[in-house]
Order: sequence, then structure tokens, then C-alpha cells
Amino acid sequence: MALSARNHLKGEITEVVLGTVTALITVKVGDNIIESVITRKSAEELHLKKGDKVAAVIKATEVMIQKG
Amino acid sequence: MALSARNHLKGEITEVVLGTVTALITVKVGDNIIESVITRKSAEELHLKKGDKVAAVIKATEVMIQKG
Amino acid sequence: MALSARNHLKGEITEVVLGTVTALITVKVGDNIIESVITRKSAEELHLKKGDKVAAVIKATEVMIQKG
Amino acid sequence: MALSARNHLKGEITEVVLGTVTALITVKVGDNIIESVITRKSAEELHLKKGDKVAAVIKATEVMIQKG
Amino acid sequence: MALSARNHLKGEITEVVLGTVTALITVKVGDNIIESVITRKSAEELHLKKGDKVAAVIKATEVMIQKG
Amino acid sequence: MALSARNHLKGEITEVVLGTVTALITVKVGDNIIESVITRKSAEELHLKKGDKVAAVIKATEVMIQKG
Repeated sequence: MALSARNHLKGEITEVVLGTVTALITVKVGDNIIESVITRKSAEELHLKKGDKVAAVIKATEVMIQKG
Repeated sequence: MALSARNHLKGEITEVVLGTVTALITVKVGDNIIESVITRKSAEELHLKKGDKVAAVIKATEVMIQKG
Repeated sequence: MALSARNHLKGEITEVVLGTVTALITVKVGDNIIESVITRKSAEELHLKKGDKVAAVIKATEVMIQKG
Repeated sequence: MALSARNHLKGEITEVVLGTVTALITVKVGDNIIESVITRKSAEELHLKKGDKVAAVIKATEVMIQKG
Repeated sequence: MALSARNHLKGEITEVVLGTVTALITVKVGDNIIESVITRKSAEELHLKKGDKVAAVIKATEVMIQKG
Repeated sequence: MALSARNHLKGEITEVVLGTVTALITVKVGDNIIESVITRKSAEELHLKKGDKVAAVIKATEVMIQKG
């Protein structure tokens, strides 16, 4: 199954913080740290935990560019 | 100046495609390719071109997680 | 492969409009019409065309509620 | 009053979960379930509750396409 | 009809640029200029043109904070 | 440093509400109130508090238009 989202960054989960509605997932991708806010329900259904191999997926329209 | 967006990925522009309203900016970040859709006006005002050192900036609420 | 995005709506593509950078994909989902703006590159790489069986995928943080 | 957001999916709320800042609203739309994360303030000001007739509203640029 | 999006900024359209798929709508809100990218279809169906009284509507999860 | 996001609205923070994962930041911009949901981590790292001079930053693709 292929998704139109252009950006798939493979990495490893380093931290999961669960709130009531949302969850913060931190992923190490190469030398970068990516933080993601998803629903707590998704975090639970995917059984996300430290050490999991995952991809951070980002739609191209959500990416800004900073220069200088 | 500090921005609340959690994710700043430093890289180099490899391609700029200009449309009438939007522009596609491709950035090499480590071993990954990041694609960004911004306004053509921003691409022009920032004079974005191949070889520019930039950062891809992404709000944490826009990042999904894929597993398995 | 499982994605954290909560919403997957299965349907059939009824129209593809290609711009220079973006593409408009229209999908019939049950009695509803869903419109999606993705990159032209994604539309081409997925070979999206009228009649394709696809899913519209939406992150829960992108959904608003209207009442009354 | 007309809104530029292309997607309005009519349905009925099946669950409301309130967090401190955000709320998770689940809406049944035809045979599909749509989940939405909005602010708790909006959920309270709109008095959202199970059984409410609402629409899930989604900007076209937030919709991805999955195929295959 | 009430929408969960928290931010409604009233202003006047100062420019409309139509692309093939998207449109850039510029709105003067008090002393600020707001730029919006929507679908060309929405711009046409709402007959958006210079001088129109409109509101820029933004979901709270899409707003970042910059300090310093 | 210049960011591609088109919209920077200067104002003053009037309220900060901290959840476990997210935070709600309310900013007075001219005669308007802007509400923003960011991560709690960003709110803490930027030391956001009532009275702070900040800018609300919004990508143009996240802005909808309402008319009539």
C-alpha cells in the first residue's frame, strides 16, 4: 500500500508521553530528533514504545522552509 | 527568535519547481529527501535555489507515525 | 504497515486535475465526495486515475467539527 | 456563510473524550468512523455530546491518498 | 452554524491569484496581511474577488508561537 | 533567519493552559484573539507566560476563507 505523503523518515522511538487525548512520540532519525503529536488511541493501538522501529510520515504541504 | 515548531531538519536544496501559486522545494537531509510545498511568493522572497543551506521546519502535530 | 492517522475512508477516484506542483484528487466515499490536494509527483508516482480504488487518509488533528 | 474547506461529512457524534487542552470527538459518517481532535474549549462552547448531529469539516490540503 | 475552528479573523480581500489547482487569497485584517492557499474550485464557487468582506479561519492546532 | 510561513501576527499572550502533552496559548493580536495549540515542551522551553510579546505564525496552506 502506497501513501501520497511524500516524506517517510525511518528511525527509532526514544520516548512516549501519554496524555488523555494526545500522545507525544519522539523518534531519532539519523542525527535528528523528530517529535510527533498523535492521538493516544493511535499510540495504544500501535503499541508504540521506546525502541520501536518506525517511520515519521509527513505530508509535503506541512513542511516549511527556513533560510539564513 | 525561537519558534514553537519542534522539528528543524538542516539540509541542502536539491530542486525547486515553481507553479503559479505554489512551489515544490526538495531538501536533502542526511540520507533522507524531504519535499515541501510552500507558496511561490515565499520561494521567490527567500530566493530559494539549488544548493541553498536551509532547514525543513515541521510542527509536531503534523507528523504521523507508521509502524511495522 | 499501520499508520497513526485515524481516518481511512475507502472510495473511488472520480476526477484527477494536474497542476504544475499540486494535483486535485476527487474521491467518492459512500454518499460523500472527498477532495484532496496532493503533490503532482505523488499523483504521478501512484498513477492515480479515474476509477481507482483508494482511501482518503486524514490525521485526526486536521478534522474540525461543525454543529447547528 | 460558506467556508472554503471542501469536505463536509455529515454524521452523529458517538463519543466525546475531554483532555485538559484538547478533546477527541468521534463521529459516525455513513459506514465510516471519523475521529477529530479539537480544543476542549471548542467542545465545551459547542456543547458537543453523544448523539449530536454534526459535520466533520476537512480542508482539502489535509487529505492524503492511499492506493493498493 | 458554529465551527470548532477557534480563529476567525475578519478582513477584506486585497488580491486573488488563480493557479490550476490552488488559489492564493490575500486578506487585510486590521494592520495585518493574511495569505491563504485554498483550492481554485473554492475560490470560484465562493466568487472570491478583491474587496470581498471575508474571514480567515484557522484551526488552533495549525498556529505556532514565535518569541524573542 | 527567514521562514517560508507567510503569516506572522504580532501580539501579547493573555493565557497559557498546560496539559500533559499539549498547551493552549491565547494571544491578543490587535482586536482579535488567536488561539494556538502547541506542545507543552515548546511552551516550557520558550517560557511562555501571560504578557509575553510573541507572534502567531501560520502557514498559508492552513488558512481557510469564509464568506457571506
